[in-house]
Amino acid sequence: MSKKVITHWRDGMTFDAEINGHHLLMDADNEWGGQDKGPRPKPLLLAALSGCSGMDVVSILAKMKIPPYSFRMEADADATEEHPVVYKTIRFSFYFEGEALPEDKIKKAVKLSTEQYCGVNAMLKKSAEVIVKIYINDLEVKI
Amino acid sequence: MSKKVITHWRDGMTFDAEINGHHLLMDADNEWGGQDKGPRPKPLLLAALSGCSGMDVVSILAKMKIPPYSFRMEADADATEEHPVVYKTIRFSFYFEGEALPEDKIKKAVKLSTEQYCGVNAMLKKSAEVIVKIYINDLEVKI
Repeated sequence: MSKKVITHWRDGMTFDAEINGHHLLMDADNEWGGQDKGPRPKPLLLAALSGCSGMDVVSILAKMKIPPYSFRMEADADATEEHPVVYKTIRFSFYFEGEALPEDKIKKAVKLSTEQYCGVNAMLKKSAEVIVKIYINDLEVKI
Repeated sequence: MSKKVITHWRDGMTFDAEINGHHLLMDADNEWGGQDKGPRPKPLLLAALSGCSGMDVVSILAKMKIPPYSFRMEADADATEEHPVVYKTIRFSFYFEGEALPEDKIKKAVKLSTEQYCGVNAMLKKSAEVIVKIYINDLEVKI
């Protein structure tokens, strides 16, 4: 499977990207001449960040054998006003839910990913400040 | 529609990101404990880059009223060996096909996007060298 991403223009503002054999439509919203057939390109960076760190975290926590948990991430960003519109600040929050979850291990897993392992994070950090927060059962954990 | 990207861990290495109301599955391949239910996170950066620049280019070329054309982009990258694995070099090629396509206008549109407008490009350039090439009917255009 090729690592190359091939993106075909379909029509209007719709683009079809083939990534690892999977197809992803990207599109602008109506305001920008699109038809919203898929996400905008820039927030895909936040999805990539979440997928990259999320995979690190569940892998590390699996090795640590913590109790069962559910897990989501929320990411949003402030962008510059002028062109090129880039992210200045990214708020990246980790939410864990479950019983008897070990705060220290979760904190360690998130920090290993966001400070050492996750390549997407390392790339975006060159451009934006990434503010990481951790919540366990909706209570913020001091990092 | 929220700009926030919310990503839920499903199981294994599968993550479901909601972006502008659209769902995108990300997954690792079998070698990394995944089931390949969606693309890997890192190459999503190349899709975001292609979508961002692609939308710029078709918008600019529409204003320039050039003859009908088809258009695709190919993007691949070399990454570091050590952790965090980041892209060092991104090869980003634009392919246009059509009759009587004006080389100067196409070149101008691509340069406006990759040098001025595209925010994803501006962000990734802080981390990687982005090498842009343009081909019209499979002939490389000197930039």
